Amino acid sequence: MKVTKFGGSSLASATQLCKVLDIIKADYERRFVVVSAPGKRTAEDTKVTDALIKYYQNYKAGNDVTADQEWIIERYRAIIEELSLGSAILDKIAKAIKDLATLPIDNNRFLYDTFLAAGEDNNAKLIAEFFSQNDVPAQYIHPKEAGIIVSSEPGNARILPSSYDKLENLREYNDVLVIPGFFGVTVDDEICTFSRGGSDITGSIVAAGVKADLYENFTDVNGIFAAHPGVIDNPHSIPELTYKEMRELAYAGFSVLHDEALIPAYRGKVPLVIKNTNNPDHPGTKIVIEHTGKDIPVIGIAGDDHFVSINMSKYLMNREVGFGRKVLQILEDLNIRFEHMPTGIDDMSIVLRDRELTPIKEQEIITQLTRKLEVDHIDIQHDLSIIMIVGENMKSQVGVMSTATKALSDNHINLTMISQGSSEVSIMFVINSEDEKKAVRALYDAFFK
Amino acid sequence: MKVTKFGGSSLASATQLCKVLDIIKADYERRFVVVSAPGKRTAEDTKVTDALIKYYQNYKAGNDVTADQEWIIERYRAIIEELSLGSAILDKIAKAIKDLATLPIDNNRFLYDTFLAAGEDNNAKLIAEFFSQNDVPAQYIHPKEAGIIVSSEPGNARILPSSYDKLENLREYNDVLVIPGFFGVTVDDEICTFSRGGSDITGSIVAAGVKADLYENFTDVNGIFAAHPGVIDNPHSIPELTYKEMRELAYAGFSVLHDEALIPAYRGKVPLVIKNTNNPDHPGTKIVIEHTGKDIPVIGIAGDDHFVSINMSKYLMNREVGFGRKVLQILEDLNIRFEHMPTGIDDMSIVLRDRELTPIKEQEIITQLTRKLEVDHIDIQHDLSIIMIVGENMKSQVGVMSTATKALSDNHINLTMISQGSSEVSIMFVINSEDEKKAVRALYDAFFK
Repeated sequence: MKVTKFGGSSLASATQLCKVLDIIKADYERRFVVVSAPGKRTAEDTKVTDALIKYYQNYKAGNDVTADQEWIIERYRAIIEELSLGSAILDKIAKAIKDLATLPIDNNRFLYDTFLAAGEDNNAKLIAEFFSQNDVPAQYIHPKEAGIIVSSEPGNARILPSSYDKLENLREYNDVLVIPGFFGVTVDDEICTFSRGGSDITGSIVAAGVKADLYENFTDVNGIFAAHPGVIDNPHSIPELTYKEMRELAYAGFSVLHDEALIPAYRGKVPLVIKNTNNPDHPGTKIVIEHTGKDIPVIGIAGDDHFVSINMSKYLMNREVGFGRKVLQILEDLNIRFEHMPTGIDDMSIVLRDRELTPIKEQEIITQLTRKLEVDHIDIQHDLSIIMIVGENMKSQVGVMSTATKALSDNHINLTMISQGSSEVSIMFVINSEDEKKAVRALYDAFFK
Repeated sequence: MKVTKFGGSSLASATQLCKVLDIIKADYERRFVVVSAPGKRTAEDTKVTDALIKYYQNYKAGNDVTADQEWIIERYRAIIEELSLGSAILDKIAKAIKDLATLPIDNNRFLYDTFLAAGEDNNAKLIAEFFSQNDVPAQYIHPKEAGIIVSSEPGNARILPSSYDKLENLREYNDVLVIPGFFGVTVDDEICTFSRGGSDITGSIVAAGVKADLYENFTDVNGIFAAHPGVIDNPHSIPELTYKEMRELAYAGFSVLHDEALIPAYRGKVPLVIKNTNNPDHPGTKIVIEHTGKDIPVIGIAGDDHFVSINMSKYLMNREVGFGRKVLQILEDLNIRFEHMPTGIDDMSIVLRDRELTPIKEQEIITQLTRKLEVDHIDIQHDLSIIMIVGENMKSQVGVMSTATKALSDNHINLTMISQGSSEVSIMFVINSEDEKKAVRALYDAFFK
């Protein structure tokens, strides 16, 4: 039993929907289809969701909304006509779009969410109809009926734990269920959307709820690359990575799926595969709880810039009980989130993203560390990058660090910091940002060529 | 102007004192001599300080102390007679030793310290007399007169900052000043001893106070070795290391000078040299504020065992503001001191010495981290060793990490953790203790052969 989610670019046109139909037909296990709103057909196109935002703004301002409604309805009409789905479904969708302009404006916390959600909701209706007319018995199901009950936090809904029991009942349906992504309903029947990565969250929740064997996430790329294509020409794609590895890659600049979106699937122990709607025969990248083999120590190289290091030293620092805790307290009181804290004997560095600092906060840190903790020396180093070598199987292989540092040393890249934690999911290097691309290339060549 | 300190083994016999005299005569800059109590002449011998402890215990218990007094006086007499110093100095020392048994026992917080200090104090008198009779104009000076004024903490005296001004006046003396190490006097004129490394502390204080150009510390070894002689056959001795490097070596098991003893010299920016009384022509090991050259990246390899690692992971750990601080707070509340805290993205390890833990504390840590911080996984790893590669000049050389990890990898030594902080004074490896000696040998061979 598989949950299959399609992103906006996979659903942007009739041509794309035909690919989606073929994908669903190709595997009887694809029983739950989670859909986004229609995305861009070309680079200059407008997403339906963006058109809905404009519609909402004009409605709220009391402007005429006829043009907005027409544009959105026309978008669905083009698809419906090309697929010859008939006028009943178009009438239904047109009515739903127009009815948005009858909702109360005042004291309606959920108005914006309700407008936005219409993109996914109507697309789900359209796709269910398309499947049904093409030999795939299917039905549209609203999140309320499916059991996606969420907290009352507009734009930032959270699934209520009780939802999962209801979702499990969806296993009983014989038809393919087409579920709109991106939103749930509150206990008061209000439409409430998830945050970033919305449709991915719905797919992840449904996958955990129905206890799926696999959560398929169809996009427009052949999975996740082992290094950034902007740095490495034609990097190879990763056949399999673990949730932990994906987190490390996402951390260091890989824009994979939004990682919070994956929590339900991760906690439900449902593996995930990222596949390409335009190339469905490519195996894609599978994201698993545990690797199936031990043969590949390093799965990817990532780099991210805009890091800063606060370096301090104090003679006999490591004799002071609570020194590290006090440093972190000072940062927390300034509402600064840190990333890493490598320590020597009498020195300590705090690595953080530079967006956490302002010149005033930097001065405050220096003042407090000097006065309260009486450090002997403090400096703040800017323009640093983090390079991560990621792979859970590194721990069963000696020599990864040796290969990596030799590659960096041969390319005359100086290492400001190195850290390899006990999890050994990754090795982290901190270097000057000007060396970042060179470092990623050196490491990619060392491990993948 | 040099402050020259001699340890107990350098002062144990007339033969040793003759070497000390030659050393002082050889350099007119040696103007301040800080002395310990006479140490052991052979492995089975008793130190004068230990004899004084026995004397104190018997006196306090109301026992007869004649034998204790006789043993101690005899110890000085043997030296005085062999050096033909005459009876006046012996009488003076004998009276001082006997007078200890006239001090009030009750309500005397400083009695123990006063007994102990007599070892150094009388030895200073003896040595000043010996110098004077051998063409080195010299005088004994009591810490009170010198200006070593300390806090009223028996066994743990701390120098009062005002002392340094008075000490600077010692520069005006023309004679060599012989100063007993190990103790100062309180503002109420009580004798109060320093903690561990006591005479080294006096030397360090005097060196800072008189603004010496060099603090010479004479022991019975040719300086500090680059690796432990118990692991490496005939390791080479280090010509020059910085205070920071010494701290790192001391941390990882090198029993160099007690590092708290060096704070005054370090803060006063006085360089130090460790030399051998029995081989004074050997240049010894110089401990400096900053290296004079840049040519040697690695100065020593140290290893220490009995470390433990607490490893935890939690999905999205690095999104939680204050997570690291909360972990450290839990440890602090249990009065546990940690050493290092390497972090990944969703995992964190706390490295500490195993003496900080008990089975009950371990259980408490697991319970609190699980309940309060809801970690997904936690385990505690025992029997770990830390290996340190030390050298401040590493930072100006790429390739040290590469050489080190290749050496370890070639010897099939798996690395549990690696950390190189921004100071780059050292690289730290955490490995299984069973690999410790093999690792030190592999690294020594890589950097010193």
